[in-house]
Amino acid sequence: MAAKTSISPMLSVRRGAKAIEFYKTAFGAEELFRIGEEGKGVIAQMSVGGAEFWVADEAPEFLNFSPESLGPDFRGTMVRMVMVVADPDAVFTRATSAGAAVISPIEDKEYGWRVGRVRDPFGHHWEIGKPL
Amino acid sequence: MAAKTSISPMLSVRRGAKAIEFYKTAFGAEELFRIGEEGKGVIAQMSVGGAEFWVADEAPEFLNFSPESLGPDFRGTMVRMVMVVADPDAVFTRATSAGAAVISPIEDKEYGWRVGRVRDPFGHHWEIGKPL
Repeated sequence: MAAKTSISPMLSVRRGAKAIEFYKTAFGAEELFRIGEEGKGVIAQMSVGGAEFWVADEAPEFLNFSPESLGPDFRGTMVRMVMVVADPDAVFTRATSAGAAVISPIEDKEYGWRVGRVRDPFGHHWEIGKPL
Repeated sequence: MAAKTSISPMLSVRRGAKAIEFYKTAFGAEELFRIGEEGKGVIAQMSVGGAEFWVADEAPEFLNFSPESLGPDFRGTMVRMVMVVADPDAVFTRATSAGAAVISPIEDKEYGWRVGRVRDPFGHHWEIGKPL
């Protein structure tokens, strides 16, 4: 089978089922697939307008840590998600209304993008924007 | 402008220029775009068969940490990359030959995927596989 090449991020979280609901509310994400139950290894494949990502309950024994497991003061990230959408202002507002924290307000950048950055309630970072 | 929706991971690394070369060797990645110079904020957009990701020099002042900055003993991840390719065995072998460490060997899983997992020399995790 000639699978089409794709690269999708899989986000480790605590409270996987709650995270799935958050991404639906914040980004209008659709749930394509889910296995597991809350507290027992939820894994879900999500889509935002055809752009896919995964959400999975953390499992430190398999090296999968939620950002929250890196310590109560850890606010950073090693991998941030760059989300390009037609109307980034609308998605940014929707995400912050749903509980994402503003790291950088959305604005036009000198490098030719309109973009802002949020940290979601599960500790993951999203740059929401589009090239101008 | 109606931008097509996309979600691409941006990987924070130390030694951005070296990481870009690694991803070319390991995954056959193509460099689409680069700004900055080694040690001065390299940011590059990469493609593997049309699947895009970003590589960026870490900048802790902007909350962007290389996995190496989380401590010498940290081997985990908060976001792993799920890479689907037509021939995962070939890509897995190529990646490990280029210096990626095997976390899980590539094999058929009971959930219907053939997949293996590596940690690259910059600390990021890749699941390389395809649905069977």
